[in-house]
Amino acid sequence: MLTAHKIKILQSLDQKKFRQKYNLFLVEGNKTVKEIPFSEYKIKEIFSVNPDSLSVETSLITEILPSELKKISFLQHPKDSVAVCELKEERILENDSVQIILDGIQDPGNLGTIIRLADWFGISQIICSEDTVDFYNPKVIQASMGSFLRVNLVYQNLESYLSNCDSAIIGTDMDGESFYDYSFPKKFNLVMGNEGNGIRPEIEKLLTDKITIPRFGKSQATESLNVSMATGIILGQIFNKK
Amino acid sequence: MLTAHKIKILQSLDQKKFRQKYNLFLVEGNKTVKEIPFSEYKIKEIFSVNPDSLSVETSLITEILPSELKKISFLQHPKDSVAVCELKEERILENDSVQIILDGIQDPGNLGTIIRLADWFGISQIICSEDTVDFYNPKVIQASMGSFLRVNLVYQNLESYLSNCDSAIIGTDMDGESFYDYSFPKKFNLVMGNEGNGIRPEIEKLLTDKITIPRFGKSQATESLNVSMATGIILGQIFNKK
Repeated sequence: MLTAHKIKILQSLDQKKFRQKYNLFLVEGNKTVKEIPFSEYKIKEIFSVNPDSLSVETSLITEILPSELKKISFLQHPKDSVAVCELKEERILENDSVQIILDGIQDPGNLGTIIRLADWFGISQIICSEDTVDFYNPKVIQASMGSFLRVNLVYQNLESYLSNCDSAIIGTDMDGESFYDYSFPKKFNLVMGNEGNGIRPEIEKLLTDKITIPRFGKSQATESLNVSMATGIILGQIFNKK
Repeated sequence: MLTAHKIKILQSLDQKKFRQKYNLFLVEGNKTVKEIPFSEYKIKEIFSVNPDSLSVETSLITEILPSELKKISFLQHPKDSVAVCELKEERILENDSVQIILDGIQDPGNLGTIIRLADWFGISQIICSEDTVDFYNPKVIQASMGSFLRVNLVYQNLESYLSNCDSAIIGTDMDGESFYDYSFPKKFNLVMGNEGNGIRPEIEKLLTDKITIPRFGKSQATESLNVSMATGIILGQIFNKK
């Protein structure tokens, strides 16, 4: 049942400290909820306004009213179902091709979009600096459009992680080589930096190569590309060379 | 002066009908406001909490209080200045290389991002279907980060425009040829379709070529790429081949 106490707990899950305290996070919308059983994530319970539309174990599902859904949803326009899931234990996979390294990404939409891109291009792991936005943040989960189920995210001290890394560490830098001319190795780390400040100096020191997406427009006033867009354009190029 | 009547007019400019009635739209933030004199747009007046920070003709500027700025800004966190500008008369430029055709883009953030991409890649014109979101929409102007000043947008009946077009008309289609294998001509139209429905059948009929961005991830559940991301990845590839 959806008690007042339960509603309070679920509502608190937009904050990292409560997600960690309860070891829980929310996944919204039937489309993604139905994919959870095929992932490594465990569903604790599901609240749905339309349980029949879900093809998951019915013992987990509680039927609720749209007015109740509104109370527990983090969306402006709540969808049909909310799944309460357990956080997954972090483990680092061995990198055998391309992995993405995020240095201080703050915007949940950007992280979600980058997870979605990784899933599209078949990249199985993203290593995040400890100050990157938490990927269990409801806005990240939402923006990833279910792709968080298929991409392994871990939070690491990047400086020590990359210091012990034996493959190329490629970062974006305005003074880097044009990514059209650069020959990407088979196995590497692609480092993308913070929205405002880029890659921090301690990490920049560890880069083995620097690349840039050349601007063809002539105006100096043109803003540099958004970090998730830059990631997409670079990934598009990497997979061309393969 | 910022009278109550003026505030009412400015507030109404988030709606297309009032932008057209008054022939005005708003541009927010010093960075972009300072670039307007170098564009084809005309500033009617500027309201600023910090006129000294603007390097534009001072006769146009009215100093206002932060509390007044809050009333006329469309931003959650208003910036320093708001410029009231005149709509520009639409005119179609001759296409001599690549131009983008948008068929029913609805999301202001997507249109703004695509304008920003066009500016980055030096594409000077975007032709929009008549039902594409209005580019004077404050959210579009904001998302374009000043790039609307350097890209010519026109609204056309796409069916008749493309029927009279003598260059290639390339559209994205899940069953299209991989864009990695496709040889882009020197001069063409890149058609991107609506967020949910893609390119409408009447326009699809007019395509001379269909391309797709291949998915490398193995899951069928992966959502297709967002339209602005797909545009960015394709543009990245086009400019590689040049």
